[in-house]
Amino acid sequence: MENRNRQVLLKRRPTGSPTVADFDIADGPVPDPGEGEVLVRGIYLSLDPYMRGRISGARSYARPVDVGAVIEGRVVGQVARSRDPAFREGDCVYGGYGWQLYSAVPGKDLLKLDPAEAPLSTALGVLGMPGLTAFVGLSEIGRPQRGETVVVSAASGAVGAVVGQLARRAGAHAVGIAGGADKCRYVEAELGFDACIDHRSGDLGAALDRACPNGIDVYWENVGGAVQHAVFPRLNDFGRAVMCGMVSEYNDVEPRPGPNLMAVVRKRIKIQGFIVSDQWQRFGEYRAMAAPLVRSGELKYREDIVDGLDRAPEAFIGLLQGRNFGKLLVKLSEDPTRRV
Amino acid sequence: MENRNRQVLLKRRPTGSPTVADFDIADGPVPDPGEGEVLVRGIYLSLDPYMRGRISGARSYARPVDVGAVIEGRVVGQVARSRDPAFREGDCVYGGYGWQLYSAVPGKDLLKLDPAEAPLSTALGVLGMPGLTAFVGLSEIGRPQRGETVVVSAASGAVGAVVGQLARRAGAHAVGIAGGADKCRYVEAELGFDACIDHRSGDLGAALDRACPNGIDVYWENVGGAVQHAVFPRLNDFGRAVMCGMVSEYNDVEPRPGPNLMAVVRKRIKIQGFIVSDQWQRFGEYRAMAAPLVRSGELKYREDIVDGLDRAPEAFIGLLQGRNFGKLLVKLSEDPTRRV
Repeated sequence: MENRNRQVLLKRRPTGSPTVADFDIADGPVPDPGEGEVLVRGIYLSLDPYMRGRISGARSYARPVDVGAVIEGRVVGQVARSRDPAFREGDCVYGGYGWQLYSAVPGKDLLKLDPAEAPLSTALGVLGMPGLTAFVGLSEIGRPQRGETVVVSAASGAVGAVVGQLARRAGAHAVGIAGGADKCRYVEAELGFDACIDHRSGDLGAALDRACPNGIDVYWENVGGAVQHAVFPRLNDFGRAVMCGMVSEYNDVEPRPGPNLMAVVRKRIKIQGFIVSDQWQRFGEYRAMAAPLVRSGELKYREDIVDGLDRAPEAFIGLLQGRNFGKLLVKLSEDPTRRV
Repeated sequence: MENRNRQVLLKRRPTGSPTVADFDIADGPVPDPGEGEVLVRGIYLSLDPYMRGRISGARSYARPVDVGAVIEGRVVGQVARSRDPAFREGDCVYGGYGWQLYSAVPGKDLLKLDPAEAPLSTALGVLGMPGLTAFVGLSEIGRPQRGETVVVSAASGAVGAVVGQLARRAGAHAVGIAGGADKCRYVEAELGFDACIDHRSGDLGAALDRACPNGIDVYWENVGGAVQHAVFPRLNDFGRAVMCGMVSEYNDVEPRPGPNLMAVVRKRIKIQGFIVSDQWQRFGEYRAMAAPLVRSGELKYREDIVDGLDRAPEAFIGLLQGRNFGKLLVKLSEDPTRRV
C-alpha cells in the first residue's frame, strides 16, 4: 500500500466553463479507518455531468462541494483495510468516495460487488447510477408505449444509451441525438436505436421530422439548449418530457430562455424533472433486471476510460463539452478482476 | 317566438388582439329542428378565453371556427320546439350552441337543467365547464396537500375562483393573483383566499415572497407572461404547475420565450397541461360535489353579465384583457327562472 493519497480538490468555484486552474492536485495522507469503517483503494472513479452543479455554489438538491475539499464522486474499489467485520481485505466494493485514491468509508455505506456478476466498472455505468437513472425516468415519467416514438438526447452517453435500449425493449421507436458521425454510427449499429441524428450536422428540426414521421411521444432531456428548442415543438398530444439534465447549459452564467409553454396546455404535455437519488430503493430491482441482460450482451454499453487521477479535471471539462464517447471513468489503480 | 335569429359570425381571423371589425352581426333564419332535434332559445351565452384559439386558424385540440360561420360557444336556454320526445317546450337545457339566439341541437347533445337545483347561469360557470376545469386540474395534476401553498393566477375569474376555494377546502394556503385592487379585495374577502396579489401594482416577485413564505407548491397557470416568469422560480421541490391557459399570450403573434427549465430537473418539478374536454366523464362527480356547496353558499361565485348578443364581440375582447370581473356571460334573452 502506498502511503500517499492522491486527491483532486476544488481550488475555486468555476464561472462558466471550468478550467484546470479551478482544481488542485495534491498528495494527502492515507486516512486511518475508524471503528466500523473500511479503507477503500479506488479502482475507477465515475465522472458525471451532475458534478458541475456540485462545484458551483448554487442551492440545489444536494449541498455543494466546499472550496478546498475533495471533489465528490462515486468510486468502485477494493478493501485495503477493514474495521467492519462485514468486509475483508480484497473485497470489491461500490461506494468509495471522491476524486481520490483512498477513502475511509463507513461499512454500512458500501455495497459489495461480485466481479463474476459483471465487470466492476459497470457498477458506475450501465448497472449503476446512470442505468438506474434511465430505468427510473422511463418507468416513472416517460412510460413509452409500444409504437410510440422516444427521442433521446446524448444518446451515446451513459444514461442515454440505456434509455434508448429500454425504450426499444418496450416496443417503442427509439431515435437518438448525438454529437458527431462516430457516435451516431455507434448508437444505430451497436445500441440498435432505429435512427440517430447528429446535432452538429445541418437542420436538426428537419432531421427530427424525417426520423420521427409520427411526431415525438417521449423526449429524454439530457442536454437542453438548441436540441430542446428543436424537440419541444415536435412533441405530440400527451407527450412526456423526462427532464434528466441540461448539460449544454451547465456552464451558463445566465439562464437562457426556455421554450414557450403554450403548447403544453394545448397538447396536454407533461414536463417532469427527477433526481435518481430520490429512488435508490429501486436499485435492486433495476440490477436484477439489467445484470442478466448485460451478461448476455443484450444490454450494451461503452466505456471511455481515462488513465490516472491527475487527468480527471481535463476529462471532466471535456465531458461538459461532449468530448467523451461512452461512460466516462477515471482509472485510479489497476483492476485485478478485469478479464482481457 | 321571433322569426329572426340574431347571430355573430367570424368575419376574418384576427391577428393580434381581436377588434369588433373581425366579427359580423347578422340576422339569419330561425332553424327548423329536424327529427330528434330540439330548437333552443338561448338565455345565457358563455364567453371563455379558449375561444381565442378557435377563431385563429392554428391547429389545436379542436377544429377552428370557419370564417363566415357562427362563433362557437356554450349556451343555456329553454326548449322552444322539440322533435325529441325526451324534451318538452319550456324545458331548461345546457348545450345550445354558438353566438346566436336560436340553435337546433340533437336532443342527445343536451343536458336538462333543474332551475331549483341552482340558477341556470351557473351551468356555464361554477357548476359548468370552468368549475369542472378547476376540479379536474387540481385532482389530476395539482393535488394540493394540507399546509401546502397554492398560487392561482386570474384568481377572480371563473376557473381561478373555484381553484382557490377547493385548495382551501383541501387545507392548503391559497394565494391569488388578480388585476386591480377591487378584484383582490373580492378574492380575499368574498372567496376567502389567504391573500391576493395585484399583479399591476409593484414588484410581483417581492409580493409573492411575502405572501408565500414557504415557497409555492402548486401553481395554477391561467395567464402566462410576466406572472409565469415571477412564479416559476419560486416553485418548491416537487412543485406542480397546472397548465390551464396563458390568456395574456393568446393575442401574441410570435410566441414569447418561456422560463428556463433547469430548475425543473433540480427541483423535480412537474409542468402539465390538460384540457377539460378530455374529462367530461367527471362532470357528474363534480356537480354532485359542488352543487350542494353552491346552494349552501360555501362555494362562491360571481358573474359579469353583458346584456345582448350584439355586445358579445366587445365583451370577448375585454375578457382577453382582463376587463371582466367574474364569469363573463352574455344575456341573450330573459331568464324566466331567475329569482331576484
